[in-house]
Amino acid sequence: MTRTVIESKSKTVVIGFDEPFCVIGERINPTGRKKLAAELELDDFSTVEQDAIEQVACGAMVLDVNSGAVFTNKMAEDPRYADNNFVEPTLMPQLIKCVQGLVDVPLCIDSSVPGALEAGLEAAEGRPLLNSVTGEEERLELVLPLVKKYNVPVVAISNDDTGISEDPDVRFAVAKKIVERAADFGIPAHDIVVDPLVMPIGAMATAGQQVFALVRKLRDELGVNTTCGASNVSFGLPNRHGINAAFLPMAIGAGMTSAIMNPVRQVEMEAIKAANMLMNHDPNGAQWIGFSRIVDAVKEGASFPEAAKAAAAGGGGRGGRRRRR
Amino acid sequence: MTRTVIESKSKTVVIGFDEPFCVIGERINPTGRKKLAAELELDDFSTVEQDAIEQVACGAMVLDVNSGAVFTNKMAEDPRYADNNFVEPTLMPQLIKCVQGLVDVPLCIDSSVPGALEAGLEAAEGRPLLNSVTGEEERLELVLPLVKKYNVPVVAISNDDTGISEDPDVRFAVAKKIVERAADFGIPAHDIVVDPLVMPIGAMATAGQQVFALVRKLRDELGVNTTCGASNVSFGLPNRHGINAAFLPMAIGAGMTSAIMNPVRQVEMEAIKAANMLMNHDPNGAQWIGFSRIVDAVKEGASFPEAAKAAAAGGGGRGGRRRRR
Repeated sequence: MTRTVIESKSKTVVIGFDEPFCVIGERINPTGRKKLAAELELDDFSTVEQDAIEQVACGAMVLDVNSGAVFTNKMAEDPRYADNNFVEPTLMPQLIKCVQGLVDVPLCIDSSVPGALEAGLEAAEGRPLLNSVTGEEERLELVLPLVKKYNVPVVAISNDDTGISEDPDVRFAVAKKIVERAADFGIPAHDIVVDPLVMPIGAMATAGQQVFALVRKLRDELGVNTTCGASNVSFGLPNRHGINAAFLPMAIGAGMTSAIMNPVRQVEMEAIKAANMLMNHDPNGAQWIGFSRIVDAVKEGASFPEAAKAAAAGGGGRGGRRRRR
Repeated sequence: MTRTVIESKSKTVVIGFDEPFCVIGERINPTGRKKLAAELELDDFSTVEQDAIEQVACGAMVLDVNSGAVFTNKMAEDPRYADNNFVEPTLMPQLIKCVQGLVDVPLCIDSSVPGALEAGLEAAEGRPLLNSVTGEEERLELVLPLVKKYNVPVVAISNDDTGISEDPDVRFAVAKKIVERAADFGIPAHDIVVDPLVMPIGAMATAGQQVFALVRKLRDELGVNTTCGASNVSFGLPNRHGINAAFLPMAIGAGMTSAIMNPVRQVEMEAIKAANMLMNHDPNGAQWIGFSRIVDAVKEGASFPEAAKAAAAGGGGRGGRRRRR
């Protein structure tokens, strides 16, 4: 049975066919978050701290830490800052130390810069997940040695030097190539978590069916765990949370075992908790019943992260009690 | 490709592997609805009328009409009313005429009394769905001749004279037996819509996985469409709508093609609309975009049936406009 083991200093999370769906919180990522990038440029980690605490309270089991910041002011003074190979190897360990000083979940070290990946691997406690290798030749040659050296699992994204194929058979072939190349390095398939790439359903009507079929095939033929950027599927459409909240249970039903996503969203997290129970991955419904108390508190006016934080602090039942006062 | 054709006087609905999920509205059912039964006893059809209009506005494509009323007052005066074989054959055609006078969707004639099924078949226009036959010998012998005589499709429930088995292989075998017995009557498999029976997940942790596997097998091996009483899965648990709203997309992903359910519930209908798009059964997302306008109107304070009725009447965009006034 395929089990991908990820660890912090004190916690173990297993991604696996017989495990609850693994929610990897995506929010600590300055790419496209200008305000966060500007804060980091000033060595202000307050948003990172809040995102770490909030995501874990809301149910993230692993936190993705992405160092892809663009420091526009520093860049104007020192041209070296225009190069992320210069910025990220310093920023990544700062982010990791900040996050693992606050929360105890395992981390996912996320960068397109190999030097940042290695700096993150040096800074992280336990056995983090590395994000990511692709089928691009240069990337395979740079990242797989790190995966082997540090004995960590890795996210494998199904694009290669020709880009992202719209043909799911090509994306499967890319994933297979990565698994085979990893094997050449002595990296087992259970340490590869394949991202089959989710296309926006608004642009490609077959995007959902593609992913569901790919996930089944990746599982049956390569024996690997899978992940995805879940919210991509709803890009460009109205009421995106409604689409995401149907996509996630369908993907889970097809065999997907993790997603990189925003956990600070009730509808998506509710869909995942329900899907876990329906997959028989929530013994006695304990997780569902706990989550229902958070839903009750939200109905009474709390925000989802507030209610989740209160529940995590042991006040999960308060919503119900408040009503009777 | 399996297609189950259901018709009213003017509308055709196809249940099929390549069709949007067929929502069969369950509300016109006096079983367990004491207030409705009491109204019907007084020849008051106002709730039936409201339920018919509201369910269709909310997205029901077929309406189930169940005549299982218990007339407690009449029973006290006339002992014949204690027997549903006496009550239902009169009530069923009244209900059907009431409903088909108001809405144009096809009907599903639902009774445990064969005389009521036949009276319903006489009263219904078009090609209604008959609900139901089971694997019980007596039921097979009484219902299949009606199915053949009136050339209608039928719901086949996977229990037999031994009751409802907890073993999904037994339930599959019952379904197979019904399909074979129907074939003896000259009834094709595409006119059988199998209900594999959904157990409450709170009582049986494998209930979800059982259904998903059964639906795939029924489709692959018997080539039949499937249905279920969708809300059974969440019986006894808190926040039932959250479970139903994850179950439905998962069942659709597994290949389920219809459900008998309450369509006057936003979360479940939203999950189905999203799942239709993710299955490539919503060309250009037109249905999803229309539904999103209803969601917007609900966010601004309308009830779901009010917003759905306004949208059905052509006012679907008003929610957005109201905000700007």
